[in-house]
Amino acid sequence: MEQQKKILCVGLVCLDIINVVDKYPEEDTDSRCLSQRWQRGGNASNSCTVLSLLGAPCAFMGSLSAGPVANFILEDFQKFHIDVSLVSEHAQCVLPASVVISNTSTGSRTILHMNRNLPDVTAEDFSKVDLHQFKWIHWEGRNAEEQVKMIQQVVMYNSRLPQQQKITVSVEIEKTREPLYQLFPHGDVVFVSKDVARHFGFQSAEAALRGLYSRVKQGAVLVCAWAEKGADALGPDGVIVHSDAFPPESLVDTLGAGDTFNAAVIYTLSNGGSLQDALTFGCKVAGRKCGFHGYDDIGKHFTK
Amino acid sequence: MEQQKKILCVGLVCLDIINVVDKYPEEDTDSRCLSQRWQRGGNASNSCTVLSLLGAPCAFMGSLSAGPVANFILEDFQKFHIDVSLVSEHAQCVLPASVVISNTSTGSRTILHMNRNLPDVTAEDFSKVDLHQFKWIHWEGRNAEEQVKMIQQVVMYNSRLPQQQKITVSVEIEKTREPLYQLFPHGDVVFVSKDVARHFGFQSAEAALRGLYSRVKQGAVLVCAWAEKGADALGPDGVIVHSDAFPPESLVDTLGAGDTFNAAVIYTLSNGGSLQDALTFGCKVAGRKCGFHGYDDIGKHFTK
Repeated sequence: MEQQKKILCVGLVCLDIINVVDKYPEEDTDSRCLSQRWQRGGNASNSCTVLSLLGAPCAFMGSLSAGPVANFILEDFQKFHIDVSLVSEHAQCVLPASVVISNTSTGSRTILHMNRNLPDVTAEDFSKVDLHQFKWIHWEGRNAEEQVKMIQQVVMYNSRLPQQQKITVSVEIEKTREPLYQLFPHGDVVFVSKDVARHFGFQSAEAALRGLYSRVKQGAVLVCAWAEKGADALGPDGVIVHSDAFPPESLVDTLGAGDTFNAAVIYTLSNGGSLQDALTFGCKVAGRKCGFHGYDDIGKHFTK
Repeated sequence: MEQQKKILCVGLVCLDIINVVDKYPEEDTDSRCLSQRWQRGGNASNSCTVLSLLGAPCAFMGSLSAGPVANFILEDFQKFHIDVSLVSEHAQCVLPASVVISNTSTGSRTILHMNRNLPDVTAEDFSKVDLHQFKWIHWEGRNAEEQVKMIQQVVMYNSRLPQQQKITVSVEIEKTREPLYQLFPHGDVVFVSKDVARHFGFQSAEAALRGLYSRVKQGAVLVCAWAEKGADALGPDGVIVHSDAFPPESLVDTLGAGDTFNAAVIYTLSNGGSLQDALTFGCKVAGRKCGFHGYDDIGKHFTK
């Protein structure tokens, strides 16, 4: 029974239009892409993709415009067997897209974010969710105040259950935005980004974990990935766990590497793996992912 | 009866994703657009929009991918009452899009063209068209060799009809590509771009018309617009006709201004207007269009 329970990721889904070029376009010129692809994006949405490819039943909760691209997004979720019953559609002309210019000569990626005017999931929306179906819920830090209220609903739900039936809560603090930092004390597992760590003045994952651990709740695990330096984690035992990175033979596509790492860590921990196993697996899957476009090949390399 | 006959434009339809910024993005950064809009684009497709807004019944012929955006494109055609019965859909994952970065601070527009792998309309496709329904057919120069064959079909069709029932043929030679120049002798009206004129070494519209007129067929009209310098035309009487530009109070959006000019010229000539009237109206409508985003407001400013 417990095996059938799903992992829920709450956050953003969007459309990424990825334009591959071999020279970054100069202003006021016309140029031609080497290729273009459309990809479902958004941190929580990407993590669902990877969880599903690794073999974990999962669901996505977030909002979507109605319009021509919504079907593309929904079909793509379904292609990866991701439960979208908690996706709310909002009528609106067209789903805005993030434009990514990916330069194969330099490896650079330039992102033009859309101006997204869709409402985030609220605590009220979340209160209608049947929590019994989930063993783990992951929040991509966005509307933190509402997200704290959602997590409190899970804490309440957990309080009536024996330890092994409780839902594990993870949060991701990726962007350097002050309101997101209120999420630190609300996760059993807290992912903090290199960006946020550096914003706090830390120059390594280990320093960040030591410096930020006082912000998490008792018993929580704090995880910090540091690109090509690998990733570190710190749990209640005070021991820093580390994994080196596993860079691919050639760097092809780093878009979503962080979301891949988070998914692989959650996957391992939710199956009872150790923190060390989780970090190592996270680095392996994320590293491998950087060697190909998109996510599909994760399924080939990591058996379900 | 003749009044009900349509104008057919043969050429490209695509999706333009227009990202409005106030600073051109530096390579390898993340930035946020001021706004983003999706717009049906492509020269022939844009000219149809303007013809329709001016009150001329018209049709578009071209190819379209199947996929999430095809419906957006088709619905947009229908919104403007453009006949799409000659649009052929080709099964393919996703319609590629052209990305436009429109910088409001400098007025620059940077275009990343899609890699379009859809087949152009062929002479065989065109042979199935019932030509009786059209009074004017306009070709956006693309697959010129095939387009010459299509025009020959019209010439054959015309040869059996009295003068006033003949279909007028116009062609647009916009891009500086050698194969397109074979279209010069095949239009009753030939639009040649400033780009092409300069490519041939001409520094003004008048010089271009004088220099290129020998390439068009006997009796044809050659038209050349020159941005803020207005437009000139030369017919069989050897007299250069000129209209100044009509710049808007403030320059908002020049995308599709050329397609607007062409449509307004075709509109006037197809209704029996003089070459001078056509040029002046072309410059007026195109100039006005540069003062607002998209095309919708053309209908407001120019009565049907």
